[in-house]
Amino acid sequence: MGGGKSPLRLGIAGLGTVGAGVVTLLRENAAAIAARAGRPVEVAAVSARDRRRDRGVDLSGVRWHDDALALAADDGVDVVLELIGGAEGTARALVEAALARGRDVVTANKALLAVHGARLARLAGESGAALLFEASVAGGIPAIKLVREGLAADRLLRVGGILNGTCNYILTTMRDTGRDFDDVLAEAQALGYAEADPSVDVDGWDAAHKLAILAGLAFGRPVSFDGVFVEGIRGIQACDQHFAREMGYRIKLLGMARRAGEGGAIEAFMRPCLVAQDSPLAHVDGVFNAVVTEGAFSGPMMIEGRGAGAGPTASAVLADVVDLARGKALQVWGVAPGAPAACAPRSTLRGEYYLRVLVRDRPGVVAEIAAALRDTGVSLRALSQHGAARDPGGAVPLALLTHETAEAAMIAVVEVLATLDSVIGAPLLLKIEML
Amino acid sequence: MGGGKSPLRLGIAGLGTVGAGVVTLLRENAAAIAARAGRPVEVAAVSARDRRRDRGVDLSGVRWHDDALALAADDGVDVVLELIGGAEGTARALVEAALARGRDVVTANKALLAVHGARLARLAGESGAALLFEASVAGGIPAIKLVREGLAADRLLRVGGILNGTCNYILTTMRDTGRDFDDVLAEAQALGYAEADPSVDVDGWDAAHKLAILAGLAFGRPVSFDGVFVEGIRGIQACDQHFAREMGYRIKLLGMARRAGEGGAIEAFMRPCLVAQDSPLAHVDGVFNAVVTEGAFSGPMMIEGRGAGAGPTASAVLADVVDLARGKALQVWGVAPGAPAACAPRSTLRGEYYLRVLVRDRPGVVAEIAAALRDTGVSLRALSQHGAARDPGGAVPLALLTHETAEAAMIAVVEVLATLDSVIGAPLLLKIEML
Repeated sequence: MGGGKSPLRLGIAGLGTVGAGVVTLLRENAAAIAARAGRPVEVAAVSARDRRRDRGVDLSGVRWHDDALALAADDGVDVVLELIGGAEGTARALVEAALARGRDVVTANKALLAVHGARLARLAGESGAALLFEASVAGGIPAIKLVREGLAADRLLRVGGILNGTCNYILTTMRDTGRDFDDVLAEAQALGYAEADPSVDVDGWDAAHKLAILAGLAFGRPVSFDGVFVEGIRGIQACDQHFAREMGYRIKLLGMARRAGEGGAIEAFMRPCLVAQDSPLAHVDGVFNAVVTEGAFSGPMMIEGRGAGAGPTASAVLADVVDLARGKALQVWGVAPGAPAACAPRSTLRGEYYLRVLVRDRPGVVAEIAAALRDTGVSLRALSQHGAARDPGGAVPLALLTHETAEAAMIAVVEVLATLDSVIGAPLLLKIEML
Repeated sequence: MGGGKSPLRLGIAGLGTVGAGVVTLLRENAAAIAARAGRPVEVAAVSARDRRRDRGVDLSGVRWHDDALALAADDGVDVVLELIGGAEGTARALVEAALARGRDVVTANKALLAVHGARLARLAGESGAALLFEASVAGGIPAIKLVREGLAADRLLRVGGILNGTCNYILTTMRDTGRDFDDVLAEAQALGYAEADPSVDVDGWDAAHKLAILAGLAFGRPVSFDGVFVEGIRGIQACDQHFAREMGYRIKLLGMARRAGEGGAIEAFMRPCLVAQDSPLAHVDGVFNAVVTEGAFSGPMMIEGRGAGAGPTASAVLADVVDLARGKALQVWGVAPGAPAACAPRSTLRGEYYLRVLVRDRPGVVAEIAAALRDTGVSLRALSQHGAARDPGGAVPLALLTHETAEAAMIAVVEVLATLDSVIGAPLLLKIEML
């Protein structure tokens, strides 16, 4: 099965966790991969920073390039695997060079696709090269294939999900233990679930990149990444987890993209949201990721699995390679290249909201806050206040839920509340997302 | 986008719910489908039983064949959509005739694929025609694509899921209302969730067909359908739902297929199982379906969505059509055609089990049952008895959980229990499935 055909030769740029995982999976599952691909698949060349480092994989007989860009020019390579990462620098230069030469590229690089997806689609279209990026979103979960192919006949109304395992681990642990963000983040760093500089994860950028890619596939053209509203999870406190549970919700860093009206604009955000305790997303815990879709015909759908790690990511990278070997090379965004779609501004969002403020524990505070909502035209659905402060006039957290309203009104409420003498620090505003 | 190219012409056999849904989706989403397919997609010919029936879709300008087999010979048809159903008869004859002529076929027919999958793969291989069947498993959920392509590089350890919406609706309603099977089935029939003759659904055959297809894709060759152990949900009583909840489980009609040892045999069953309340499958409720996979590299994964209905099924049928238009025609089982894999016999299964018996409420009954387990070498993990019967010596249900043991031992226990004077009726044996 495929034994008589010439092998498909891979050139791997980047031998970190994912690159080494790809080499391992390819060796351990060679026969099955050859049977499915219709021909053997082999590593012909690699490039990484330090030739001497032991990566736990056997690279004897494989060509080594000190300069990753040389992989784009190596005629003994059929497919370039870009596993370096980053929206600029070597990763971008390599992918552009390979596509320009008509060489197929498989990448796990979410930032590159989210920021330069429209340009790369044009480059690929001009040369006829394929650009596949299943591993860029949600690790081993075939989310790209789900949206671009599995739902290719449907009209998708929205796409989104829980797309960052670090944030989901932190939020899940905060919920289960009652501990605070800083404390759990430090533990996640010690366990290797969070980077020393965690900002790309906890500030929402990594997840937002993935959302932009899913939205581009769902709506048939890349979205302008600048327009995605992004908010991280640093503002979530232990009391928010407590209030959320009491009110029947769980807090998730959730991204969602929808068609916004008729003009073709996309409404897209990545932000901490409340989801109902009995919604499928509420049960996606720890380092797991989930992608949700809603189609006019297919209805609601959710896929969950491991969103990161060497094994899952290698599985996704090599599934793309098998697709290439099977002779499948779709358009980058599933249709002919087009201009990026604009994103609707945050102020045009609508929804129900959770608002938490730290207030001085004294008479009349609740009335003052309720008046601020009334004056902005926001209708209150529920309100909860926890315990009394030890000292009279001390600080207590207060949380409220609104009926559906404009996000612009909530932004105004937050501004008014911040000026009140009885409110301490910045209020926290979370969207409630129905699924 | 695709406007300049010649249309892909469909011939639809069967204009029931799904067939009419396909026509509707194709009309409503024509532009997006053409953009993704790279060419327009149109209905050229149809065949159904009654030409005069109003199906709510406009078929003007479409050729009508009274004999479905004529679609296989219609040279104005590029792809035959077989939406008739059934493992034999017209459906089988049409698919075989179309494949023999080298014409691509898209089908939603789970029984045909499960029973004749090996033969159809050979036919398709000989003529070079494609045979796609995404809609045959789990409605709108792209489960086939997930297993055959999304996880094509991985070594799957198991595949399975909740694959029949009728059974899942009945079990969910029984759990939530405390009502009995017959009562809920009658309601499901009134609501249109169950057929007048419900046996194909509630006896597990529909779900078992889908499992056999998933197993064939996961392990690279069709499985012998005869060897799949199939048990329906008629034996589940209200007291079982009660016991399951008390013990931390939910009851699901669950299918699972695993590699059994080194010989290449597949262990496959479709049967009511207990799943832990905090497992992802426990939250798949009502008419929803879910497919789970576990890969050596990708880890555990679950996808859930609507498993039936006109919209979801039409979405899956036309996703296959878009794949064909995009020029993708994979092998039927993902690899070159091979002989069917044998299934391991039920007696070789192992696991933890739930056993419920109706016993006479009198002293010494528990000791008698415990002795029967001990004598068969089965280790007891938990036991629960509900209430006392109104009359001394009346009947009360008793449930127990075992530690891991051989199913052969449990079959022996059930046989011994059935002979005891203190046991009334047949005991119910359910597997506990870890996920």
